[in-house]
Amino acid sequence: ADQVEAIHDTSCRVLEEIGISFLDERALETLKKAGADVEPGSDVVRFSRGMVEEFMSYAPSQFEGLARDSGTNYKFGGDSVLFGAVSSAPFCSDIKKGRRDGNSTDYRNFLKLTETMNCIDFAGGYACEPMDWHASVRHLHALYDKFTLTTKMPHIYSLGYERVTDGIEIARIASGLKSQEVAEGQPCYVYTNINSSSPLRHDKFMLIGMREMALRNLPVIVTPFTMAGAMAPVTTMGAVTLQNAEALAGIVYIQAVRRGAPVVYGGFTPNVHMKSGAPAFGTPEYVQSSMVSGQMARRYKLPYRSSATCTSNAADSQGAYETMFSLWGAMDGHANMIYHAAGWLEGGLCASFEKFIIDCEQLFTAQQALKEIDFSDDALAFDAIKEVGQGGHYFGAAHTRERYETAFWEPILSDWRNYENWSDGGSKLTHERAHKLAFELIDSYEKPKIDPAIDEELKAFVERRVREGGAPTDF
Amino acid sequence: ADQVEAIHDTSCRVLEEIGISFLDERALETLKKAGADVEPGSDVVRFSRGMVEEFMSYAPSQFEGLARDSGTNYKFGGDSVLFGAVSSAPFCSDIKKGRRDGNSTDYRNFLKLTETMNCIDFAGGYACEPMDWHASVRHLHALYDKFTLTTKMPHIYSLGYERVTDGIEIARIASGLKSQEVAEGQPCYVYTNINSSSPLRHDKFMLIGMREMALRNLPVIVTPFTMAGAMAPVTTMGAVTLQNAEALAGIVYIQAVRRGAPVVYGGFTPNVHMKSGAPAFGTPEYVQSSMVSGQMARRYKLPYRSSATCTSNAADSQGAYETMFSLWGAMDGHANMIYHAAGWLEGGLCASFEKFIIDCEQLFTAQQALKEIDFSDDALAFDAIKEVGQGGHYFGAAHTRERYETAFWEPILSDWRNYENWSDGGSKLTHERAHKLAFELIDSYEKPKIDPAIDEELKAFVERRVREGGAPTDF
Repeated sequence: ADQVEAIHDTSCRVLEEIGISFLDERALETLKKAGADVEPGSDVVRFSRGMVEEFMSYAPSQFEGLARDSGTNYKFGGDSVLFGAVSSAPFCSDIKKGRRDGNSTDYRNFLKLTETMNCIDFAGGYACEPMDWHASVRHLHALYDKFTLTTKMPHIYSLGYERVTDGIEIARIASGLKSQEVAEGQPCYVYTNINSSSPLRHDKFMLIGMREMALRNLPVIVTPFTMAGAMAPVTTMGAVTLQNAEALAGIVYIQAVRRGAPVVYGGFTPNVHMKSGAPAFGTPEYVQSSMVSGQMARRYKLPYRSSATCTSNAADSQGAYETMFSLWGAMDGHANMIYHAAGWLEGGLCASFEKFIIDCEQLFTAQQALKEIDFSDDALAFDAIKEVGQGGHYFGAAHTRERYETAFWEPILSDWRNYENWSDGGSKLTHERAHKLAFELIDSYEKPKIDPAIDEELKAFVERRVREGGAPTDF
Repeated sequence: ADQVEAIHDTSCRVLEEIGISFLDERALETLKKAGADVEPGSDVVRFSRGMVEEFMSYAPSQFEGLARDSGTNYKFGGDSVLFGAVSSAPFCSDIKKGRRDGNSTDYRNFLKLTETMNCIDFAGGYACEPMDWHASVRHLHALYDKFTLTTKMPHIYSLGYERVTDGIEIARIASGLKSQEVAEGQPCYVYTNINSSSPLRHDKFMLIGMREMALRNLPVIVTPFTMAGAMAPVTTMGAVTLQNAEALAGIVYIQAVRRGAPVVYGGFTPNVHMKSGAPAFGTPEYVQSSMVSGQMARRYKLPYRSSATCTSNAADSQGAYETMFSLWGAMDGHANMIYHAAGWLEGGLCASFEKFIIDCEQLFTAQQALKEIDFSDDALAFDAIKEVGQGGHYFGAAHTRERYETAFWEPILSDWRNYENWSDGGSKLTHERAHKLAFELIDSYEKPKIDPAIDEELKAFVERRVREGGAPTDF
């Protein structure tokens, strides 16, 4: 508790004495009006402790996120843990066709896997960037696909006014709501994530996204990207202190826009690898920052977002153990939302089809391991232990026969045959089996049903906005 | 707490009403004398709750284990976590020479890696079985190697009177003690592990080992092998209940031999894979049984032993994630001793050189992640955050320059170069890099120093016992 307070206290000193740049005039106005100290002629905003505590208290500790399947509402916060696919990789790869620029075909294929895999709860940012769509209209094509190829909880990017409001309009149509209803803050199928521009800055595009979402009571995940040794102090807890200050500033701003708007506390603090300058994920320091970030989120009674990431260049054992370490940090940190949990490679530069399947196997296992354990008298099996007695075996026991078909979790990817059978089957390594499974699942994918009127309206909106030229790209 | 008591209570019912077979006359006598109910003309022993509670209370909650380096005493229990190499695999493998029967050369090479890797604390059973030594004298040759090629805490097998007493004599010589001192219970460099012969049986060889070790106050790890659905109930908590009953019976016996003798509560409850009949490790059920077993050990205030295992046939991503799940269960279960933590493949049938290195990378990462986090003012880095301010970066900050060389953990195996450099370097997968590193470490291994007089005495003892024919093999 003392250590959590030490981080809180130091973050408050950062907000009081150093301040955060808000690179948006309207944000500066809003914050000034809410009582923050905006340095004249500058974009630096300082916050008193009282203001931080007050505005943080407006944020709800739990709320619902909506998927495009009206039966599926996801809980943010409490004991809930939600998993999302890899987001925002510029490259994608599979072991047959190799590594390539992100493109719309692969982007769609990742959406199909996202829909198919029950261990995935939300579709985050584009799994890989669909570069073949021009940047001005990319969000329109990509969001149409995201809202029609999967029913999982959909994300929109907060990259400036046009993109975020186009995204909200697409979500409105998909949710079957009237504009007025969305304006009034009725829940619809959408959330966003914003990153700070560390150190100590929130940039214009993200601030616009935060405002537009918050005005409509839509969820914003506030995730500073504080890489220790680069954009943040080289000490893990120094980087977490910076992360915390930036997260508090973002959340206070959102609450200043609309009190009670739903937010998630995001932690994303890898460290730079000093020998190569590359960001390193799944490291011991990363595990520690994930766990401590969770304690900070609970200090503020907010849902917590973490990530399952790795540094590995291949979907091999390094990829698996680094992702598992990230997952361990996230889950022992009681994360409610775990980003990038399937398909992430190369510190986020590449979305891999094999890695997607391998990670899903890990998520299924983790989800199953977290299920409530049966401690009933039947489960404790005194009668079966008596029936079998000393020596012998349980294969034929009534207790076994009644339960054996459903007693144990069955993997989708792991090969549990003995060595001889595995060897006779060609000694296939796990990433080879994952490749086969990924494209079998893509081939057998079925598009989820959608109300034809809604689909028409979505298409018409996207066509119109594409004709209009989409969003400016001169940034 | 209710659930822990439910398992304790049901285990006590098993011990009271069903009983455990002790397949050794002397054990039956000892238990009868201690107050247990030995069924006339049978080997079934029943224990009252009072007797269980009384004898369990004699076992110490913490004790020391000794390595052959007099400066290194390991703590069993409390916050201590000790890691051991793979034990008792009949096969071994590397990716160049393939899979083969265990043999003395590979056995020695695993001991060299055990000595070299600082993440490993104890040398368990033979990493792979050195089959080229005849079973009657294998323990003599193998223990000479174990006590001279590594200084890590050494294990001896409890496979009958001759083997365990030969092992104790080798430990006595290596420890530089007089026979009388060992007989009186002075600590020396040795421990053993026993497995029950589930369900509800302790066999003669193991019981003899337990007695000979306990008589001399030497540590015994009591590890039932209760595979759910085969030798144990198909429900995970039924299997844990059986495990618990067998562990209690074993520990009560040891305390009946010598009150206060050091013991460890062992959990080893995988589940049978119903489709193939093979044992499955690293499954969700395995994670749950590992965590619950830790709670049982704490119920009895005893050190807890678990394992880091997998089902995988290859040192690929399946091997990594399954081992990580086992490690997760063990560490979140607060295990004090983690067996098989480096090199285990194929559900324990094979010791792999590549897997040994991959697992050590995981252990180093886990150990580093568990270190105490620095929350000092310097670590929280307020002054550095102020110095760098809004925008900019920390590369040149004084705070970074003073710390960057030691700020982050540096991996032994993981490749953190970017994709282009990794690709230019031949796109080597992790198990390929692990192969290279394993044999480089074996080639550069240096034998730890030993007092020549002790070495001579060890050699003389082994030679004499080999001449005498070693241990009987007619079992």
